[in-house]
Order: sequence, then C-alpha cells, then structure tokens
Amino acid sequence: MAETEEFPHQDQDELLTHLREVQQLLSRHRLVEGLVHRQDMPRHDLVENLVHKQHLAELRNKLDSLHPADIAYLLEALPREDRLLVWDLVKADRDGEILLEVSDAVRESLIETMEPAELIAVAEQLDADELADLAPDLPQEVIDDLFRSLDGEEREQLRAAMSYAEGSVGALMDFDYVSVREDISLEVVLRYLRRFDELPDHTDQLFVVDREARLRGVLPLNVLLVNDPDVEVGDLMQTDALTLQASDSANHAATAFERYDLVSAPVTDGTDKLVGRVTVNAVLDHIREAAEAEQLAQAGLHEEEDIFASIWDSVKNRWRWLAINLITAFIASRVIGLFEDSIEKLVALAALMPIVAGIGGNSGNQTITMIVRAIALGQVGEDSERRLLHKEVGVAMLNGLIWGSLIGLLAWWLYKDVRLGAVMTAAMTLNLLVAATVGVVIPMTLRKLGRDPAMGASVMITAVTDSGGFFIFLGLATLFLL
Amino acid sequence: MAETEEFPHQDQDELLTHLREVQQLLSRHRLVEGLVHRQDMPRHDLVENLVHKQHLAELRNKLDSLHPADIAYLLEALPREDRLLVWDLVKADRDGEILLEVSDAVRESLIETMEPAELIAVAEQLDADELADLAPDLPQEVIDDLFRSLDGEEREQLRAAMSYAEGSVGALMDFDYVSVREDISLEVVLRYLRRFDELPDHTDQLFVVDREARLRGVLPLNVLLVNDPDVEVGDLMQTDALTLQASDSANHAATAFERYDLVSAPVTDGTDKLVGRVTVNAVLDHIREAAEAEQLAQAGLHEEEDIFASIWDSVKNRWRWLAINLITAFIASRVIGLFEDSIEKLVALAALMPIVAGIGGNSGNQTITMIVRAIALGQVGEDSERRLLHKEVGVAMLNGLIWGSLIGLLAWWLYKDVRLGAVMTAAMTLNLLVAATVGVVIPMTLRKLGRDPAMGASVMITAVTDSGGFFIFLGLATLFLL
Repeated sequence: MAETEEFPHQDQDELLTHLREVQQLLSRHRLVEGLVHRQDMPRHDLVENLVHKQHLAELRNKLDSLHPADIAYLLEALPREDRLLVWDLVKADRDGEILLEVSDAVRESLIETMEPAELIAVAEQLDADELADLAPDLPQEVIDDLFRSLDGEEREQLRAAMSYAEGSVGALMDFDYVSVREDISLEVVLRYLRRFDELPDHTDQLFVVDREARLRGVLPLNVLLVNDPDVEVGDLMQTDALTLQASDSANHAATAFERYDLVSAPVTDGTDKLVGRVTVNAVLDHIREAAEAEQLAQAGLHEEEDIFASIWDSVKNRWRWLAINLITAFIASRVIGLFEDSIEKLVALAALMPIVAGIGGNSGNQTITMIVRAIALGQVGEDSERRLLHKEVGVAMLNGLIWGSLIGLLAWWLYKDVRLGAVMTAAMTLNLLVAATVGVVIPMTLRKLGRDPAMGASVMITAVTDSGGFFIFLGLATLFLL
Repeated sequence: MAETEEFPHQDQDELLTHLREVQQLLSRHRLVEGLVHRQDMPRHDLVENLVHKQHLAELRNKLDSLHPADIAYLLEALPREDRLLVWDLVKADRDGEILLEVSDAVRESLIETMEPAELIAVAEQLDADELADLAPDLPQEVIDDLFRSLDGEEREQLRAAMSYAEGSVGALMDFDYVSVREDISLEVVLRYLRRFDELPDHTDQLFVVDREARLRGVLPLNVLLVNDPDVEVGDLMQTDALTLQASDSANHAATAFERYDLVSAPVTDGTDKLVGRVTVNAVLDHIREAAEAEQLAQAGLHEEEDIFASIWDSVKNRWRWLAINLITAFIASRVIGLFEDSIEKLVALAALMPIVAGIGGNSGNQTITMIVRAIALGQVGEDSERRLLHKEVGVAMLNGLIWGSLIGLLAWWLYKDVRLGAVMTAAMTLNLLVAATVGVVIPMTLRKLGRDPAMGASVMITAVTDSGGFFIFLGLATLFLL
C-alpha cells in the first residue's frame, strides 16, 4: 500500500462536515456555471470567471488535504455528475489509492470515464497485489499494455497475484513483509530495520526464513522490543504461529484472524516457501464484503448498487430475483387454481389461505437462518443433521399447536364454523412441519453439494411453504369441509 | 487479555480434526459409563475404571494443549451434555478466557452450571474491561462479592468499564496501552520497553501523554524502529492520528478502523485525557456481532440461538416474530375478507392475488435493503430522500410495466379475459409503486426518529405490500370487472 500516513484521520462527524462543505462548493460552482451557460452574463466576464476558478481551487485544496479513503467516501456519497467533477479535481497521482478504496459500483463509474493512458498511469502507482484487485475492472487493452510495461520480476508478481481465485487467501495477500534470518542477533535486526524509511503497514511481526526462503518462524515486534539485543532471533522466534496457504479459503483465514486476534499472518505456497502475508485490514475488508454480498443476495440484489445509479442499471441489477419470485408465485397461483371449485363453494378459504402460507414461510426462514449460521461457524457436523431435524420438527410441532390453535379459534369465531377452525389448525401445523424439514434439508444439502448454503435458500423455502401451504390448506378443506 | 501466546494456532481443518478426536473420546467415555450404569459389569471393576480414567485423562491432555479460543469452538460445537463434561475437564484457571470467547448463548449455558465461588474465582483472573463484558451474564451476588473483593483502584476501573453503554467506544475499550512522554529520546523508550515482560497485544503504537495524562500524540512502533535512537519522541510523534471518545458510537469506530486500516486507536474522555484504547480485534468482534445480530433480527430471531438449545428455549426465542407476522397476516386476511363477494363471483381473483402481493413484497425488500445499506455507509444525506424516492419510483414504474405486463398476459391467456389481464397489470404496477415509496420512507423515517433503520423494516414493508396488494388488486377488480 502506498503511504498515506500524512493525511489526518477524521471521525464520522468531521467527515460529514467535509461532505457538506464539498457539496456547498459544488453547488456554488454549478450556480456560476449555470449563469454563464444561460448567457445571463457574458461568457468571458472576468469577475465571474475568477469566482468560478476560485471555487474549483478551494475544492481542489480541500481534496488535497483529505485522506484517500475519505475522498473515496465523498465520491460514493455524491451524485454521478458531482462525483465526476470531484474525480477530475483529484491529483492524478492519488487516483490509484482512491480507486482501491471506493466500492465496486462507484469504481466502475469512475473507470468508465478514464482514458487508457490515464489508467495505465494509475496502474503504475500500485503494488502487484493492489493491481490484481483492480484488474477485473480494467479494460483488457490496459492490462496488456501494463504487462508490456513491467519488468520481468514485476510481471511475474502480478501474474501470480492475478492467478489466485477470488475467495482464496492468495487474493487477500500482499507482498510487503520484512523477513530476517534466525542466526542473527536482535541488535542486528534493529539496525537492519533502521535502514528502512518506513516499515510496511501492519508489520507486527517479522518473518524468519532460511536461505531458500522457507518459513522457519515469526518474530513479533513485541518480542523484539522487550528482549536483550544480544539474543539471537532463533532463540525467540515462535514456530507455532498461524501459517496460511495461498490456496486456503479466505473465510478460513478470517475465522483464524478472529479466533486468535491476529494482525498479520505469513502465507506459504504448497511447500514451506514464504510467498506473502495477509493483514487484518485485508481480512476486515473481506469480512465486510462477504457480509454485504450475503445481505444483498438475500434481497436478490445481484451486486452492490450505487445509490445514484440510473433507473435502468437498477432494474438490471434487480430483475433476476423478481423473475425467480414471479415464477414461484405463479406456481403457487396454479396450486390455488387447482382448488377454484372449493374456493367458489367456501370463499372463506381465499381469505385464510395466505395466513397458512405466510407463517410457514416465516418459520422456515427462522430455521434456515439459524442453520446457515451454525454451518458458517463450523458447529454443524455431517452427523448433526438428524439431531437438528429432530429439534426443528419439535419446535415446529409446538409452534403449530400454539399458533395454529390460536388462528383456528379466530377462524371458528369469524366464520362460525368449528370444522373450518380445525382444518386451519391442522394445515398450519403441517405447513410448519414442512417448513422445518425443508429448512434443515435445504442448507445441509447445499453444503453437501459444495454450494454456499445461504445462497437462494430463502427463495426456495418461501416457494415450498407458499405452494405447500396453499396445497395443504385447500386440500384438507376440500377433503373435510365440502 | 491474559497471555495465550503459548498455545498453537490451528487452521480450520486441524480444528475439525480436534473436534472429531474429542467426540471420539467422549463417545468412548459414554460407552464405558453406559456399561457401568447398566450394571452389565460390576461398578468398581478395576480394569474398566482404569480405561474410564484414561479416556478422561486423554481428553484433559488434549484440552490443555489447545488455545482457549479453540476450546470455545469445541464447546459451541458439542451438544449440551458433552459440552458440560468438557467444561468440567478444562483447567479452572483458563475458565475466564474461555468464557470470554464463547458465544452468548453457550456462555449462559456454562455459567448456569457454575457455583458462585467458582464464578468469583474466574472473575478474579480477568481485567476490568473483560469483566465488564462478562458482567451482564453473572448473577448479581457474584458481582456484589466481586466489588467487595477488589481494591479501590480496581473497583473504580471496573465501575468505569461497566458504565459505558453497549454500542459505545467505551464498551470496546481496554486499558492495556503503553504511554511515554514527548521529551525523551527513542533510546530511552527502547530501554523502557525492555523492562516489560511482554507488550500488550496489538501494541502497534505508543501513546504520548503529558503529566496530566492528556494525549499529545502517538508514536507508531514502525516509526520508533526505523529512526535514530537519539531523536526525541516529540519530534516524531503523529498528532493527527485518529482519537476516539469513550462516548462515541462503536459503529463510528468500526468505520474509522476500516477506512484508515488501523490496528489500535487511543480513547479520551470528554477532555483530552487518555482513558484507554480500542484495538482492531475488538472492532472485528464488534463488526461480526453487529452483522450477526442484524441477520438474526431479519429472520426474527430474538437472540443468538445455541443450535443445541432445547425446543422450549427455541420456541421462546422465535415467538415474537411469529406473533407479529400472525397479526399482519391476519390483517391481510381481513382485507381479503372485505372482497369475499367479488371472489365468489370471479374465483380467478383468489388465485391471482398472491402474485400481486408477493412481487410487491420482494421489490419493496430490495429497495429497503439498498437504502438501509446506504444509510449505514453514510451515503444518504437528509436531503437525498427526494432524489432516492424519484429513482425508486422510476424503477418500480419500469418493473411494473415489464413484469405487470408479462403477468397480465399470462392471466389473460389463462382465464381468457383481457380485462382481468389489464387489472392484473395495473394492480401490479400500483403495488410496486407503493412498495418503492414505503421502501424509501420507512428507513428514512426510522432514521429521523433516531431508530435503527434496519430493525423491523422488512416486516413493515411486507405488511404494507401484502394488505396493500390485496386491496389494490381486489378493489380494481371489483370496480372494473364485476
């Protein structure tokens, strides 16, 4: 990561103040532009032109004083037009860092406006691991040009960084570690470190390697600092610290960082060779992104949506989910269609059936949420399925009797028909049992198939409990009431 | 945090192996117990007793070799009975650390089984900030005893730690920082640090304070290590690093840690006085917990649920949400009840109405998810409401025309009634417009009221789009078709 330490850190309130100031400067700028444009004043009016320039200069000064991450925040919070104006004012040599910080959707909108030459200039400011993060959003010609402009070693690093699959430790990894040999004294280490202008961010430990770059252990700075300078590295290094493999899942790395409260961890390839490190900030970003992706996916948003995206972009982002739900709703509708004769004879069925379907869906979603979470935390063995099923079916049974009876009584009271109430209670209980069973089986099966148990589980359960609920309720009613 | 560095760090696969080994030892132990219990063999059979003891000894050895966080994982993944057996075998002096690591639900189940005297012994192993985390789960008598056993200064620290509201920076804070004066040389700092046995975890910077403990700046270890030992702290310290206030929101702290890739940050009280620090591991835990709480709340789970909880505990955890949904479903049912005459005349309405309600709910949930997220990221100003409404209404309009027309055509084809198709299209479009409007207004209003915009938003929108969808569709049908 390029060094950004010279920029002040701001808390959220200060940042909001900056946002408001930038918005004011922008609106004043637009006002002047508007006047000139509408030709209410002569286009080259000297005074206005000065004011105009002054606003932009003020804006540029403000931006120059801000941390790249804060500029990224401003860009995300501004509507497209303002965003691009601000982006133009940012110093070109900071573009790279800022592009790394903004959200994917906003990054796309910024890259779209840039020329290949600009993009190449940006890319040249970045480390191989950062470049690999950016690469999927860059046009192929820029990547080709870039590869040509790099020297042999850099090219190899970039190729390596780009080769790791998304969601692997390799994709979280950077190459900014400090390594030492085990046969030197702490004194020598301290002198070696003083030759750096600055240590890489998040250096909480040095990696101890042998001549073949094989990882031998780690030397935490804490240990380095509290021990006598005459002691040798080999006597103090820790050999049982967490070591990741580049091909490990990033989720495993995240769990380990949380479990052991780590700041950094060395990464090796298949053999013991040290190839990089993962730091807690990369893990934090990964956790946040994974949580967000899940949240978005649960509401059927295909990807992160820039809140200032065009209507058309939003429609495209959301259509898949609506289409799937339309299909499942249509199926449920046809299930009802099978029983139109029954509904015609007893129209109360039409009013009561959504209750059975709805509560089934809610209950099933509770089951599925709990199980998906337990799977994610590694608490569910393959052998727990029967035990979990047992428990969930028990919960559904009890809930069915409680809520089913309540709603059965209500139906009896409303429609003065005790048999209708009884059918309602039975249907509700049965649909809750279906919901519980399917709520356990869907995520467990998805896991066995090697799929993400969270993905699509909620749509599936709602589809089952809707169609199932209508079928059970209308079916029982047809059998026993008509 | 008590020191845990001597325990090896394991990756997820190694951990699973440990889990399986523990499960095997437990089941062998149970087998022997079962035999003794069923009296198939004499209760004091020497050989069996030896085997029995040997299993437990093996289990205890295994546990002794594991990191407290890994034991916590094992406890969470084991059914209640096994969990308590393992808990008994864990060395008493590690109980405190382990209780800090386990999930709330499991912690409760463990604390329930412990005597007050044991709990006090556990509490005495912990630092004030750790104790404050545990306190809500401890019986009042233990807390009272504890306060009596502490000396004046410790008592004050604990009282302070317990006084911070959940969700504040104070609640994330610990007291394990290293502070130095600005008028000393790095040489002196290095000598000072060597007097420590070990620096606190996550010490990436020293805090520079004056005689009144007012924070003057920070000295990153990285800076300390690369500079000449003769330079003074004051010449190198950074004064614009992020400083948190104990009363700040923990979410603000989390945003700042992510934005600036921090490992630790000093915390001051209302004045400039240094009172503690926040570290990235506390922030990571906070982020994970907040994300989980939100996920659980969205499925209406009141709190984290131990997957091995009893059926009755699970029913209690889930009833609120089911009750609320039952009420909203009942209201929707009564809306349908208003139109029973219409349905009796045209039974197709019963089959088609859930489609209108369902797609409205899905679309509204997409809107609300996007807006809640944008609010959480600080991208939505108070003034953005109209702009967002504009966009969402546009999206709904377009979606209504696309999907409404499609489903209208389907209805026409199914029921050979073009007017029914037209009503379907109109109702769908209108309900999507309702969903979009309410999807923007609910979270924005919750925010203005100072409430969490995510909380309950999804229930509310589904309630509106269900009842609203039925009303719009059946109302239009009654007006134009009958």
